[in-house]
Amino acid sequence: PGVPRGRGCAGSREVVPTCERYAVRRLPFGRLADGDVAFFERLMPGRVITGEEEVKPFNVDWLKSVRGCSQLVLKPQTTAEVSQVLRYCHERNLAVNPQGGNTGLVGGSVPVFDEIILSTALMNQIISFDKVSGILVCQAGCVLERLNEYLEEQGFIMPLDLGAKGSCHIGGNVATNAGGLRLLRYGSLRGTVLGLEVVLADGSALDCLTSLRKDNTGYDLKQLFIGSEGTLGVITAVSILCPQKPKAVNLAFLGCQSFAKVLETFTTCRAMLGEILSAYEFMDEKCMELVERHLKLSSPVTDSPFYVLIETSGSNSTHDEEKLNNFLEQAMASGLVTDGTVATDDKKIKVLWGLRERITEALTHEGYVYKYDISLPVGKLYDLVTDMRARLGQSAKNVVGYGHLGDGNLHLNITAESYSHSLLDAIEPFVYEWTARCNGSISAEHGLGFKKKQFIQYSKPREAVALMQQFKAMLDPKGILNPYKTLPSAP
Amino acid sequence: PGVPRGRGCAGSREVVPTCERYAVRRLPFGRLADGDVAFFERLMPGRVITGEEEVKPFNVDWLKSVRGCSQLVLKPQTTAEVSQVLRYCHERNLAVNPQGGNTGLVGGSVPVFDEIILSTALMNQIISFDKVSGILVCQAGCVLERLNEYLEEQGFIMPLDLGAKGSCHIGGNVATNAGGLRLLRYGSLRGTVLGLEVVLADGSALDCLTSLRKDNTGYDLKQLFIGSEGTLGVITAVSILCPQKPKAVNLAFLGCQSFAKVLETFTTCRAMLGEILSAYEFMDEKCMELVERHLKLSSPVTDSPFYVLIETSGSNSTHDEEKLNNFLEQAMASGLVTDGTVATDDKKIKVLWGLRERITEALTHEGYVYKYDISLPVGKLYDLVTDMRARLGQSAKNVVGYGHLGDGNLHLNITAESYSHSLLDAIEPFVYEWTARCNGSISAEHGLGFKKKQFIQYSKPREAVALMQQFKAMLDPKGILNPYKTLPSAP
Repeated sequence: PGVPRGRGCAGSREVVPTCERYAVRRLPFGRLADGDVAFFERLMPGRVITGEEEVKPFNVDWLKSVRGCSQLVLKPQTTAEVSQVLRYCHERNLAVNPQGGNTGLVGGSVPVFDEIILSTALMNQIISFDKVSGILVCQAGCVLERLNEYLEEQGFIMPLDLGAKGSCHIGGNVATNAGGLRLLRYGSLRGTVLGLEVVLADGSALDCLTSLRKDNTGYDLKQLFIGSEGTLGVITAVSILCPQKPKAVNLAFLGCQSFAKVLETFTTCRAMLGEILSAYEFMDEKCMELVERHLKLSSPVTDSPFYVLIETSGSNSTHDEEKLNNFLEQAMASGLVTDGTVATDDKKIKVLWGLRERITEALTHEGYVYKYDISLPVGKLYDLVTDMRARLGQSAKNVVGYGHLGDGNLHLNITAESYSHSLLDAIEPFVYEWTARCNGSISAEHGLGFKKKQFIQYSKPREAVALMQQFKAMLDPKGILNPYKTLPSAP
Repeated sequence: PGVPRGRGCAGSREVVPTCERYAVRRLPFGRLADGDVAFFERLMPGRVITGEEEVKPFNVDWLKSVRGCSQLVLKPQTTAEVSQVLRYCHERNLAVNPQGGNTGLVGGSVPVFDEIILSTALMNQIISFDKVSGILVCQAGCVLERLNEYLEEQGFIMPLDLGAKGSCHIGGNVATNAGGLRLLRYGSLRGTVLGLEVVLADGSALDCLTSLRKDNTGYDLKQLFIGSEGTLGVITAVSILCPQKPKAVNLAFLGCQSFAKVLETFTTCRAMLGEILSAYEFMDEKCMELVERHLKLSSPVTDSPFYVLIETSGSNSTHDEEKLNNFLEQAMASGLVTDGTVATDDKKIKVLWGLRERITEALTHEGYVYKYDISLPVGKLYDLVTDMRARLGQSAKNVVGYGHLGDGNLHLNITAESYSHSLLDAIEPFVYEWTARCNGSISAEHGLGFKKKQFIQYSKPREAVALMQQFKAMLDPKGILNPYKTLPSAP
């Protein structure tokens, strides 16, 4: 469901180069020379992209919020080619920006200066799938939605699902430890990813691509690369445990009169739906208004300050419907929910998911979007939206909240006609201080990338950041892998 | 269910000191002096154990297979005390052996020479539990079964369960990435552990004790300590996501006439039980014979070469029983299963679980036990037992196989009257080579500890081991934390 990201849906205005907007200083990496391009042309003929116009889509993020000025995109097809590229770049001290589907939201997937873009777009082969164990092994550039389609034919699904599914690459998902819509049910990638193949900064390949559910032989190296945003190595292949395709999927889309009722509905449904609950999402009325206005969608449930989407996935449709109906009766009878609709057929399910999944897209039609992706104790989740709305008053066009309530994950979005330093100063560091006071995380699932890296200390102690810097120095001593990302630059 | 380990159930014969049996060389650490003991006495009066007899239980593992010769046990109560101990030991170059419940099976939990034993036994406080999120925060020395009892009163359970539950510490579970009986349902500790507090080799404390389901702010440092067997840091506190206590638990104990039918039963039950399947365990008839002979247990199901234990956990007993009955009818009708019994009440469930959980204990009555904990593609799981039995012939007393079939995890156990080098030479490296040929893991859940560390290369490539060694050198440059464990010693 939802329109795939990464296809230019965010309008066509010019984007200010990142290094200008944020006044970043280029690090002393080597500069690309004609001889370098010639080397890459020999290595992968026809898969070397130069020329400003051709390279441009790789330089700008999906949100059109950051822009690099790379002059070169490389499209390897094999791990050996990635190795050779990195060995060469390491030798020549050339910085590299690994890029998957370029659907990231924190500026991690595009260069800041002239980093060479290493795209996984052509590393899109499925290596193996075992129907007994449900273990899929594939190259990093496989598109999430393609993998899911492939698995569905065999009675399985991917353990993760997100709005960007039509464009994002599994390698990028793993590199950013993507969360998304199924985390509540199938857990995080830290549990479902069984193995990785990674090429390190010096070009050496690290083969941890096992397909075992359990393996306690030494330290779990692959974990370091999950969520490291391409700063420690380039993921070239993934082994992942896939759940069986549920035989029955049901969806309920409900209206609640207050956030307190959204919370109580969650507690009730978790108890009554138990093991078949597979998503609990919420959005406020402002989100609904934007989705309806900009995307011409219409909601079957109206006039509520909050909307909730509940999905069940199970193995027995009769049992599942009975559980869902019992829950709905109880929720209606006790006044938790004032209006609602249920869907059991694929088409209606897709339509309802669209209301929730396409909020991000609808927001991009508003102008500039300040995006925050916060983990908080669920009870306090919406207070941040209310406080921010009061704080910004008329200086923001919209302040909206939605997200994965079941995981304690709020997406706070603030829109304005265009980017302004003063509005940013009103939002930050207020939003981070607020989050830190609740022991929350300033990035639940989006990562730090370029835009959030300077705020890491709001969620991690100094000692932890220092240790991360030691790991970076050990694995990438020249710092050529996705520089200017994830870790804060020296003060 | 099951008798807790760690209470001397493995007989009372004398154990040969590890350094003699395995001819290990002591590394040049400092030697314990009177001044050191005096320092610790001042730091934690009354919680410093000296004297050969008092220290002895901490020197010998539960299997009575390895024995250290430490002269000192320390029992800190706080993280600050652990910090001070390590800072002092680091300064003095004294080696330290962190110890939880001492229920490990690979010699990782006891010293090899005179390492100071740092016991978490008195770090047994629950710090917090949040009923909305199900997140428990506690000190590392809490006993798993105690935690589970505490949670059950509040409608939750621990996401892991294992035979040693009555003695093992949660810190030790995390340090060894324990698997156990619920992994099939709730996933590994890499997904359920949300935060850790760790004291590093130099005494500095690393606070990554967050209680958030999602947090993508930088590298996930805690993962490095999960499964590192105390060689990179001492875990002092754990934050863990706990599932709701299932309202209905059902158990089926079945007899199968061949391993092929065990496999087919698994595929069938996974499809028919879906989301309520919480365990799929198997054992061969030899295991049953030993459990009956040594522990005087009796099985309600008899005369089968293989036995299968299936557990369901769900939120609706009517639905669950219907699913289970449908599955059993089908399994009986198609001849997959020839005999069986079902349990829904707690007492009978405990009795049936005992047959499976107490195999380890029954084996210790046989004499010396050579234990192997292997991950394999499920289809090949039992071939290793058959091959080993044929290979060893009369030189072994028993060759048995059981384990977590649902996770592809075989426990291969070989018994003999007493330890012998020649029998070991007949088993190893054969068992590891066999496993490596199938791309399996030579340690699925037990870890490498002391006994398996030299075999890491059968499951990990050279580059990966080299990287692990770099991590060790970075985090513990003097090598004082649990030396002689996990990583292979230099050739």
